[in-house]
Amino acid sequence: MLKCWSAEGSMKVYVSVDLPPDLAERLSKTVEIVGRDRIAEAEAALCFKITAEELRSMPRLKFIQVVTAGLDHLPWEAIPPHVVVAGNAGSNAVAVAEFAVAMALAAYKRVLHYNEKMKRGDYKRDVGIPLVAGSKAAVLGLGEIGTRVAEMLAALGARVYGFSRTRKEGPWTFTADLLEAMSGARIAVSALPLTKHTRGLVKYEHLAAMDPEGVFVNVGRAEVVEREAVEKILRERPGFVFASDVWWARNDFAKDADIISRPNVVATPWIAGGYGNEQVWRRMMEEAVDNLLRWVRGERPRNIAKREDYT
Amino acid sequence: MLKCWSAEGSMKVYVSVDLPPDLAERLSKTVEIVGRDRIAEAEAALCFKITAEELRSMPRLKFIQVVTAGLDHLPWEAIPPHVVVAGNAGSNAVAVAEFAVAMALAAYKRVLHYNEKMKRGDYKRDVGIPLVAGSKAAVLGLGEIGTRVAEMLAALGARVYGFSRTRKEGPWTFTADLLEAMSGARIAVSALPLTKHTRGLVKYEHLAAMDPEGVFVNVGRAEVVEREAVEKILRERPGFVFASDVWWARNDFAKDADIISRPNVVATPWIAGGYGNEQVWRRMMEEAVDNLLRWVRGERPRNIAKREDYT
Repeated sequence: MLKCWSAEGSMKVYVSVDLPPDLAERLSKTVEIVGRDRIAEAEAALCFKITAEELRSMPRLKFIQVVTAGLDHLPWEAIPPHVVVAGNAGSNAVAVAEFAVAMALAAYKRVLHYNEKMKRGDYKRDVGIPLVAGSKAAVLGLGEIGTRVAEMLAALGARVYGFSRTRKEGPWTFTADLLEAMSGARIAVSALPLTKHTRGLVKYEHLAAMDPEGVFVNVGRAEVVEREAVEKILRERPGFVFASDVWWARNDFAKDADIISRPNVVATPWIAGGYGNEQVWRRMMEEAVDNLLRWVRGERPRNIAKREDYT
Repeated sequence: MLKCWSAEGSMKVYVSVDLPPDLAERLSKTVEIVGRDRIAEAEAALCFKITAEELRSMPRLKFIQVVTAGLDHLPWEAIPPHVVVAGNAGSNAVAVAEFAVAMALAAYKRVLHYNEKMKRGDYKRDVGIPLVAGSKAAVLGLGEIGTRVAEMLAALGARVYGFSRTRKEGPWTFTADLLEAMSGARIAVSALPLTKHTRGLVKYEHLAAMDPEGVFVNVGRAEVVEREAVEKILRERPGFVFASDVWWARNDFAKDADIISRPNVVATPWIAGGYGNEQVWRRMMEEAVDNLLRWVRGERPRNIAKREDYT
């Protein structure tokens, strides 16, 4: 049971996530945590996701702190316009960025290809091993994850092109032109969030502009890439690799099995964000609580969503 | 056919490798290239490997330029003590270092594990994904390859320990104590050459001192690691991963199939050095020719082998 130090009349926060005890205590020093039974009193919510039904039960709601970085899964139409929504970008960015680079290298350096052959007792060398050093790499999205991916690839010697809506400087050539970023790229990593601007952004022409032996990695959201475009490029180019941690049917991976099972696909089940890693999990929870407390204290919270990106 | 500009009486070099025409021309401006038929006239040799029989056929031999970085495959007992031997370390170091990091990340971030499951339609998340950032990594051997591996792992945020016989500074904690380097390491990469000092250097106690979920990567020579130690640790620790591009039976991979086929082994067929990559191949040939020409001109060649490391 939680021990609540907060005085009568302190702000009520509806918490639907399983907070570690010390974080629950930290939060309880400033607010009163309420559960489903007293949801109606809540002025703020701390959650992974939230339903339209929960939203209707909180007439006093002013602020939603989401524990995940992505906010595309929220029922945006049900969130009243005066309610401020904050995400948690950056809290697991290191984990996701490392995973993106791991996927890119595993595919690009043909570790997966040769390991699979060796296990079958096929010891023949067939495909060559390209260099990262000096090769063009495109990073789509220059948020916390994309920035780290771009920095890592640059440290490995790649010529990095960074693509995003707004100019950001770093060890990359910036471009707001997706085709320019991807043309001739041997590695491309998408760390784009899913918004109404990014849905279906990556089309066949972009994938086809990459090196024919290139590797496209997605650690953002599947829907940023047109599914038909991926099917077409995989059919046409046996040397091209599509590596993804995110899938169009979300957690219902069987629905994407037609793509997952293709030989030139590398697939993982949405785990890049430090799945099963307590350190990463702990940091996500901590940063979400800290950001919520910023709002409670009247400071400006980080990662405030732009409603117009989703509705 | 090669066109030889060299005057009568110029130095003869026995070339047993298939040089690109322009490099053959470059070499021919200074020396006369001879083949097997005129081997007896050769004062120098350019080769991948050399036999005792070839050595006996070259009474005038003073210098051997090997195209590979490793020199452990030479018939050292048959090389007269006055013959200088130069290797080609560094020429494909970038390729090997990139491959080592790719193997390490593919295994450590469990990309291989989950991809294999996804292909079988097993979408269950089971093992957690550890972080590179903040984790201890050991790099064994701080030559051209090891140095680059250490720099890359440091750029990815790992706390790197660098092990070698002689102190070398870089973005690592230097140690000449192998057990200190490997204790608690989550990633260890061996880029050690095979010499009489390194043969069997990595024993069970070193592997057992690593994190139980650790990843040991070998891109140097298999014989640096005791085969029995690897068998034992793989049997005892299902979460430990042994990832290797090099095998005890060299190119006869079937003889190491008992280890290659284990689930916690990642195996590739000795390809890290840029297999099938013309750019890497070209650079190796170029650097070997340039180093040979240093000796011909009376300059000090690079990568002169220490005979006492092999005999």
